[in-house]
Amino acid sequence: MLSKSQIKLITSLKQKKYRQQHGLFVVEGIKTITELLQSSFNLQKLYTTKSFKIDANNNKIDEILISDSDLKRISFLANPNTALAIFEIPKPKKIEKSGLILALDAIRDPGNLGTIIRLCDWFGIKNLVCSNQTVDCYNPKVVQATMGSITRININYVNLENFLKSTNLPIYGAFMDGTNVYQKQALADGILVMGNEANGISEPIEALITEKLSIPRFGDLQATESLNVATATAILLSEFRRRN
Amino acid sequence: MLSKSQIKLITSLKQKKYRQQHGLFVVEGIKTITELLQSSFNLQKLYTTKSFKIDANNNKIDEILISDSDLKRISFLANPNTALAIFEIPKPKKIEKSGLILALDAIRDPGNLGTIIRLCDWFGIKNLVCSNQTVDCYNPKVVQATMGSITRININYVNLENFLKSTNLPIYGAFMDGTNVYQKQALADGILVMGNEANGISEPIEALITEKLSIPRFGDLQATESLNVATATAILLSEFRRRN
Repeated sequence: MLSKSQIKLITSLKQKKYRQQHGLFVVEGIKTITELLQSSFNLQKLYTTKSFKIDANNNKIDEILISDSDLKRISFLANPNTALAIFEIPKPKKIEKSGLILALDAIRDPGNLGTIIRLCDWFGIKNLVCSNQTVDCYNPKVVQATMGSITRININYVNLENFLKSTNLPIYGAFMDGTNVYQKQALADGILVMGNEANGISEPIEALITEKLSIPRFGDLQATESLNVATATAILLSEFRRRN
Repeated sequence: MLSKSQIKLITSLKQKKYRQQHGLFVVEGIKTITELLQSSFNLQKLYTTKSFKIDANNNKIDEILISDSDLKRISFLANPNTALAIFEIPKPKKIEKSGLILALDAIRDPGNLGTIIRLCDWFGIKNLVCSNQTVDCYNPKVVQATMGSITRININYVNLENFLKSTNLPIYGAFMDGTNVYQKQALADGILVMGNEANGISEPIEALITEKLSIPRFGDLQATESLNVATATAILLSEFRRRN
């Protein structure tokens, strides 16, 4: 049986305010929980309807067996999995100002952020810098969409304008009217900024961009919507990496 | 007021079986409805809480004004928009066997298919061929994710194995262990096959691939998950197009 206070704590973690207050976040699904157990992230509580017994490193896990109906009460999903874990939010490490850094200016969709974190992992981007207006990376939908990649990327939330002002690195930005990225002979490491889903890169950030890049469009020029920000990020990260 | 039979028809269109039986599909949200009204798609019914009056071409629209509560009864969304439209499913045109064709082998996630249709539109891919195991493109979540692009792409559902057997075009496939796509000097037009989210390209289809391609991974080789199929499609379509 779950106590009322346990249920209250867990369901409060849907909200960023309480995640930050408690320094905790929720993960659901055996696959992602197992990935996190194998990482440096610290487990706080594991609620499960079937015993995990040991984690991937053969360590005994302190698990709390609960019923399906209890899981339903604490799950954030319409169709709950068999387990829900609470992990501690790790302290972000200092941003290394080397290599390629990805910066996000007010990305709002959890699925997009999750996909972008997974892309960082694939393309070996170690540092992801998010403006304070970007959706929280410990939002359950983001964690789910990262497929475990969240454990391998150093994510910092910052005042993006101040952060960009403090660096001498090249600052690239994705725009509809930038230089055709295919025609760039070289792309030096620096910071690549991707903008908000509806509005793109905001004006104060645009003023700090040293090179505007764009992905050429081949479809009907009148009609085609812009690319989704996660797919545009995929293409631009690929463009940076293929030149190495 | 909506009649019971109207409500029954609309809600039945959540299911592929009834979409096919009636030849109709549902679109919600003013932005996507407006995109579809501007296309060659035929409107069957428009239910709205606020009058559209005229469409983008200044034609009078035959709209049915309904209350918020009626919209709530027919909407597929948790938070309904202000309008819901029913359009006729268009007859797909014959697949043109020229240019670059994208083929999907059992893509199951509606968001992925929607994103891929939007990518086709951006990259000027006119023909999308889906295996019969691929999620229905008139699934409401797919339509929503295409942002109107669905009106500009010719989408055919086929027996993919038979389709690929009937062509002499190069057949590319995305694999974890294919040729590094960055190192290809040229990529001739042909058919690019993308596989299922969990299992990749199925064995019968793999046997028909003439060239396996892969996107190199730069992150930690042990840990990183595969790329999401929509982002992998974005990168590969970009690779085909940037060589032109």
